[in-house]
Amino acid sequence: MRSVTVNAPSGHYAVRIGQGLLQTLGAGVRERTKARKCAVIAGENVFPLYGAAALESLQGAGLETCSLVLPAGEGTKCLRHYGELLEFLAERRFTRTDCLVALGGGVTGDLAGFAAATYQRGIAFVQVPTTLLAAVDSSVGGKTAIDLPQGKNQVGAFYQPALVLCDTDTLQTLPARELAAGYAEVIKYAVLGDPALFKALGDKSIEPAEVIETCVRHKAAIVAEDERDTGARRLLNLGHTFGHAVESRSAYTLLHGEAVSVGTAMICRAACKKGLLAPADRDAVIALLRAYDLPTETKYSAAELYDTLLLDKKFSGGRLHLIVPRAVGRCEILPVTAEEAYTWLEAGLR
Amino acid sequence: MRSVTVNAPSGHYAVRIGQGLLQTLGAGVRERTKARKCAVIAGENVFPLYGAAALESLQGAGLETCSLVLPAGEGTKCLRHYGELLEFLAERRFTRTDCLVALGGGVTGDLAGFAAATYQRGIAFVQVPTTLLAAVDSSVGGKTAIDLPQGKNQVGAFYQPALVLCDTDTLQTLPARELAAGYAEVIKYAVLGDPALFKALGDKSIEPAEVIETCVRHKAAIVAEDERDTGARRLLNLGHTFGHAVESRSAYTLLHGEAVSVGTAMICRAACKKGLLAPADRDAVIALLRAYDLPTETKYSAAELYDTLLLDKKFSGGRLHLIVPRAVGRCEILPVTAEEAYTWLEAGLR
Repeated sequence: MRSVTVNAPSGHYAVRIGQGLLQTLGAGVRERTKARKCAVIAGENVFPLYGAAALESLQGAGLETCSLVLPAGEGTKCLRHYGELLEFLAERRFTRTDCLVALGGGVTGDLAGFAAATYQRGIAFVQVPTTLLAAVDSSVGGKTAIDLPQGKNQVGAFYQPALVLCDTDTLQTLPARELAAGYAEVIKYAVLGDPALFKALGDKSIEPAEVIETCVRHKAAIVAEDERDTGARRLLNLGHTFGHAVESRSAYTLLHGEAVSVGTAMICRAACKKGLLAPADRDAVIALLRAYDLPTETKYSAAELYDTLLLDKKFSGGRLHLIVPRAVGRCEILPVTAEEAYTWLEAGLR
Repeated sequence: MRSVTVNAPSGHYAVRIGQGLLQTLGAGVRERTKARKCAVIAGENVFPLYGAAALESLQGAGLETCSLVLPAGEGTKCLRHYGELLEFLAERRFTRTDCLVALGGGVTGDLAGFAAATYQRGIAFVQVPTTLLAAVDSSVGGKTAIDLPQGKNQVGAFYQPALVLCDTDTLQTLPARELAAGYAEVIKYAVLGDPALFKALGDKSIEPAEVIETCVRHKAAIVAEDERDTGARRLLNLGHTFGHAVESRSAYTLLHGEAVSVGTAMICRAACKKGLLAPADRDAVIALLRAYDLPTETKYSAAELYDTLLLDKKFSGGRLHLIVPRAVGRCEILPVTAEEAYTWLEAGLR
């Protein structure tokens, strides 16, 4: 088993990565929380695969259990399902010391995490990511959220889990498209600051467990420095600023990772046109995304994407913080006005 | 003007108390936030009285403004109005640096505070309490919440305001019943730790602005020590454990302060029966509550109140933390089992 410790200002916890870890869930909850009751929240695709094993492990550790199965897909990250989950906990008389387990991908983790952050102003929370994307990114670092009709992740909280258990066996059942989408976030870490990872990904010479550990280490270092996303953590938005706009415009027919891939390709193209990134680096990033079967183009126009962009949380004080690659392994934060953001968007399209 | 500084671990801010302070709202927002836009949230009873003055002050300070008027009453602290407020902000493209102003009583402050805590994971927030109850209690200390059908304040966040402006002129328009309800929280502070305040309240020899400053100082001291309600802050729940159950059972036909008054009388009666409080102190507290026209009895049975009690956030690890008066000016936290809680509830009824 691999283990990475996240030392966020608001809490320290372990991210455990390895085969068969789902069996240790009950022991982990016992060790890290004072819970008597534990609710497993999972999507309808994930629960039939791993729900029974999760509940069995929790019951084996003497915990009272219940479970809530939610529809799959980004549409579930909404106020209605948030309310459903809160009332589910209240009906079962969950108290502040009880525990919520998110078993699944980013949608499940984000929604369950926001419910855990706010039910009785915060109850214990454990992430069990079953997608590569959740394992390398959304399950670590404490960003929880739901969407509004006006935009993605518009409502949420910073709330760290008590434990993250990544059972790499669960990645075996991941559809190819979802696995590829996870690699978009992996490639993000490589472009941000890890040329060795970039090379290993190109060679396909790195195991999934090592990929996950490497990415979690990068994320843990950034979160330790800037939990609340006011400085260095903004770097993790590489590919996300334009990516969120594309994802939102597609009405979530694109997976998050696919949209991030398009957003990463767009910011590389734009950075190149603005003379900030060498054409060879732009081409290398786009080629790597394509090598993992990820999309790098969008059919939406700059005008169509711009309106969604204006709602971005990265806008503050009238400026948007773009994450601009300067080379493979080096990016910088560039504040731009709304008008400048439009020219970047346009430059990224082709 | 009187001013009290709250030094909560997650943020420091001033509570300003005095006449005519509403006119300083715009300057206060400018001084304490980086907002460009400012939304005023108010109940339908309060907005016609003070909405125009609040907006004028904000506009005078160069802020772009908008306002949302909500129905009066506890029923507004629900998921539906929470969603309405979030979408209102998103529609107007509020960003993380913009500001929400809660103009009104505890319902407005709790709901707007929770929206501010979670919209884009937290935007600037200013409290302008216009009721005595909000001034002495709910606007200070950072507890924000909404209710679920299963119970009061079941969902929320700890989120400190950037500023609290208490314009004592606004208390002039407060209905007598609401003013009395505020005194229930004032009497709470006196019973908790301020015999001098208790005496002054009995003599009616203390001005409203001094009452507010005294209570805010007590609350600030407790919040500085225990922002997250895991220790000393629990003392502030004096009268609230049974009070919430009575309030919830009454379907909010009782005001919060009225329910707290009933809850305070109940815990005094029960403490007396258990031999922990002298009959003279019990009688003095109940007499003071009645002197402020507050109710001290409830028609609900122990069995009716018990079910609501089981959902209390103060239950943790199977124990409920009762706040038990030992004398006027001295209370203690007593953890009891669910079964013991029932006997306390019963002993409190008469």
